[in-house]
Amino acid sequence: RADKPAIDDARALARGAARLLADLGVAAIAEFTLPSGRRADLAGLGRKGEMVIVEIKSGPADFRADAKYPGYFDWCDRFYFAVSSRFPAAILPESCGLIIADPFGGAVVRESPLQPLAPARRKALTLRFARCAAERSLRAL
Amino acid sequence: RADKPAIDDARALARGAARLLADLGVAAIAEFTLPSGRRADLAGLGRKGEMVIVEIKSGPADFRADAKYPGYFDWCDRFYFAVSSRFPAAILPESCGLIIADPFGGAVVRESPLQPLAPARRKALTLRFARCAAERSLRAL
Repeated sequence: RADKPAIDDARALARGAARLLADLGVAAIAEFTLPSGRRADLAGLGRKGEMVIVEIKSGPADFRADAKYPGYFDWCDRFYFAVSSRFPAAILPESCGLIIADPFGGAVVRESPLQPLAPARRKALTLRFARCAAERSLRAL
Repeated sequence: RADKPAIDDARALARGAARLLADLGVAAIAEFTLPSGRRADLAGLGRKGEMVIVEIKSGPADFRADAKYPGYFDWCDRFYFAVSSRFPAAILPESCGLIIADPFGGAVVRESPLQPLAPARRKALTLRFARCAAERSLRAL
């Protein structure tokens, strides 16, 4: 109904956003636990090693309950929120990238500022990402 | 039959060897294509970023047909052959590590010499590995 708050399927949005990232050359995994203990909905590595984090928001309440999102900035070069087209995008901070997604893909509506990771942190994060992704792919072996 | 050459199921041995690597803290993926174009049966990353390559040999003929295995030494810190317990291990070069595997696990029978990768190559290989592993884990999303 039009008067009910819109709540999207976060998992479906994550799939669409991951497909978008793949189209952009960024290989992503879901639910990547950062050294801080927080879990990123999507984390990806670009061809040159750029680390990208995408946080999925299923609706305005989901965003308003998240005071900690600036903590992600410390662990990536670019940070995006990903929401559906019915999400009121104006409430999202302009300092973050914005992806509009559906279950099958998406588009970068606002590019993220680039805040390059320090080399030692990039190295440690890339290794962590690699080992996490490999552990998941192994389950299919 | 005892007089027939023993041929093992390479895929099953790969699974057992990958489980052994996991027990040793090495997160592995199967069929990792190296920058040289050759594909490693198993490649893994240890906790400190050590790159390990394991080549599965299903039988003596499989080993004798492989003149190119020294090419792997350029892309890892440690290199192992993995074979079943009925493989005549004496024909394998002593300069390589040796894993005896079955479909459910295995053991390192001979440790591999350590030949550390140059830092730039390690960095590029780790990124390549991370992106490859992520692309596979994405299929499950």
